[in-house]
Amino acid sequence: MAKLHRLISVVLRLAAAGAAAAAAIIMVTSHESTSLFGIEMNAKYSYTPSFVFFVVAFAVAFAYSLLVILVRPGSTASRLVLLSDVIIGMLLTGAVAATGAISDVGKNGNTHAGWLPICAQVQDYCNHVMGALIAGFVSLVVYFLIIMYSLHAVAEPLCSCH
Amino acid sequence: MAKLHRLISVVLRLAAAGAAAAAAIIMVTSHESTSLFGIEMNAKYSYTPSFVFFVVAFAVAFAYSLLVILVRPGSTASRLVLLSDVIIGMLLTGAVAATGAISDVGKNGNTHAGWLPICAQVQDYCNHVMGALIAGFVSLVVYFLIIMYSLHAVAEPLCSCH
Repeated sequence: MAKLHRLISVVLRLAAAGAAAAAAIIMVTSHESTSLFGIEMNAKYSYTPSFVFFVVAFAVAFAYSLLVILVRPGSTASRLVLLSDVIIGMLLTGAVAATGAISDVGKNGNTHAGWLPICAQVQDYCNHVMGALIAGFVSLVVYFLIIMYSLHAVAEPLCSCH
Repeated sequence: MAKLHRLISVVLRLAAAGAAAAAAIIMVTSHESTSLFGIEMNAKYSYTPSFVFFVVAFAVAFAYSLLVILVRPGSTASRLVLLSDVIIGMLLTGAVAATGAISDVGKNGNTHAGWLPICAQVQDYCNHVMGALIAGFVSLVVYFLIIMYSLHAVAEPLCSCH
């Protein structure tokens, strides 16, 4: 039973790491130059603070996911894993939400604020960001599963010893 | 000891509920009309999807925080509280991150995307949103403490019975 738990845990961590790496890489490689009425327009992830935060958050999640696999179950460090999992889960939620909010303005604009949509001009860039957002969301969902699975495993023996 | 645990838990829930209510109310009451070069400019939270999400998330957190106080410790429902706490914590993180990202564009603009800052025109509105963001952040921090406190309490007896 412990072996099955361990296997599920490792598979989930690898899936989270893979999706996090994909999210960070797709975001970092998103740039496009275009000219509109003779004006050069340059779109790059580093121009938007939320996108930079997204890359940092998913790079951290990638490294963390691989490191945690090395933690021996039952060790002192393993007691801290659930705590740090929750912190990573919240970090990724924040990154996806901030990037999603800015992407929505990029796609639909906000007429009340006078912010025009830019996706029609830099279609490739927008597709890249959307791809990163989807990969990031997958990684976030896997982290959510990891946390729920760990909480379930923690709550189970707790109840049998009360 | 159990009584102290319960007291700390109730105080933290009430603090989270208070801050969440403040965040939602300050955001809902944020609107301002101004005219610039004869053009009427209207700023309202409901014009920005992220701000609407913010209000919904903190209204849910407020109601949830009060409801959870009624859950009897040791009951079946109390086993689910830690899981739902983590979900609420992630929901609030998402709301604060999305609102923070949009507020940053409102305050500093994004020259690369051609989005101008609007806070100079609607100063009152921006202050309101900033107030809501601070109250929301306080509520989020309290939720983070609640989750860490619960995880600590759950991990403790687990270790003594192994």
